[in-house]
Amino acid sequence: MIMDSINVIKVGGGILEDEASTAALLDRFAALPGHKVLVHGGGRSATRIAAQLGVESRMVEGRRITDEPMLRIVTMVYAGLVNKSTVAALQARGVNALGLCGADMDVIRGHKRPVKDIDYGWVGDIDRVDASMLQKLIDEQVVPVMAPLCHDGKGHMLNTNADTIAREVAAALARYYRVTLTFCFEKPGVLSQPDNDNSVIPHINRALYAQLKADGTISGGMIPKIDNAFSALAAGVENVVITRADNLDGSSGTLIN
Amino acid sequence: MIMDSINVIKVGGGILEDEASTAALLDRFAALPGHKVLVHGGGRSATRIAAQLGVESRMVEGRRITDEPMLRIVTMVYAGLVNKSTVAALQARGVNALGLCGADMDVIRGHKRPVKDIDYGWVGDIDRVDASMLQKLIDEQVVPVMAPLCHDGKGHMLNTNADTIAREVAAALARYYRVTLTFCFEKPGVLSQPDNDNSVIPHINRALYAQLKADGTISGGMIPKIDNAFSALAAGVENVVITRADNLDGSSGTLIN
Repeated sequence: MIMDSINVIKVGGGILEDEASTAALLDRFAALPGHKVLVHGGGRSATRIAAQLGVESRMVEGRRITDEPMLRIVTMVYAGLVNKSTVAALQARGVNALGLCGADMDVIRGHKRPVKDIDYGWVGDIDRVDASMLQKLIDEQVVPVMAPLCHDGKGHMLNTNADTIAREVAAALARYYRVTLTFCFEKPGVLSQPDNDNSVIPHINRALYAQLKADGTISGGMIPKIDNAFSALAAGVENVVITRADNLDGSSGTLIN
Repeated sequence: MIMDSINVIKVGGGILEDEASTAALLDRFAALPGHKVLVHGGGRSATRIAAQLGVESRMVEGRRITDEPMLRIVTMVYAGLVNKSTVAALQARGVNALGLCGADMDVIRGHKRPVKDIDYGWVGDIDRVDASMLQKLIDEQVVPVMAPLCHDGKGHMLNTNADTIAREVAAALARYYRVTLTFCFEKPGVLSQPDNDNSVIPHINRALYAQLKADGTISGGMIPKIDNAFSALAAGVENVVITRADNLDGSSGTLIN
């Protein structure tokens, strides 16, 4: 059976929270041919609006402590403000976008993270993604735009890491499509010299990754990103690309497979 | 051709903005058999959150003046907080809810209301509802939950009256289903004596409506509601019911047809 291909694009780093970079990103996303999915964050807007509402943002290892008031804020900001503004902006570009959170059509179900050393509050770890309705919609040329929230099936939304949402959605879609999962961040790819944007490593496989970790070329925050990429590949995703938002067409960046 | 029937339920009056009344309403909505759509408002939450953000709510003839900051707030509150909380709560009740605003899948397109005496700002009047994707989803047992926002096709969300959204969605669905449109408000139906909840008029047709208006039995704020009902009937809706949220099963209330 020949499967269609699909691009799952995760944008982070505040790209959709600044007017100029949003317009440029959405122009590029709209120009991508074929099936596609956009996964976004919204942390900067959530922090700003929480502050305006007198709610303090507390982060532990990059994760937001999500008590009840903060859950209401991230639900508003991620699934409302950022998601629907993006949907309307994509519709204006001729993309038939549909904004979703994990509760919609029960697409992403998770559970509240158990309290060990840290109580993250209403933060979710994903149990399963049901891509069957996504596939029907995508085949009707609908483009899902996904906010980083899942639900617990008991009536609670759960704040969920956007990279994880992207990986799990990409993996679930691999049952129906040949999936390329692209993570856009602030650098043009995985760099061999952290301060040199011209040092993009064009291709990383498992063997090279082991070597680059061993010799210290890849370290720190890049390790969970690449681990996440290999975990997506193990789940059936065909290619993972790490690149900058202005290289959405795949013309450069680091290909992992 | 025998068409399936569908219930389009509009809930207003803050029913979905209070925890106890929300649970009761959603239990009743979940128990309704067959195809269904829920249309909600969110004005009280928007006013409260706007005040917390230092944005003043200005209303003219019951309509919210929607400048740019207020548009961001109603987008957050209607399409994020109220919509997704409702979706998660319905999923917990076994209803496969999908939260939508008018920009999603280009379902409801409108235009910014032209400025005459009053500049309402980003308030929308509806140009068309495209129910073709709704119909496909409904036939897959998905239950659309609709926030009172449409979009202009140029990238802007538009704040839109929820009764109008309900009427226009019901009318568009009449191409595919036999539609009953139910407006839930704080009274058990259209009353012949405003202060007597036992004076519900069980059935109103055009002839009786003319008579009740002429003799003053129906007046004031009830007139636009009933005009709205007849306009839905003229557009192909089979029945309109005006009732209280605790009579969602149609056991009482005023039937208009």
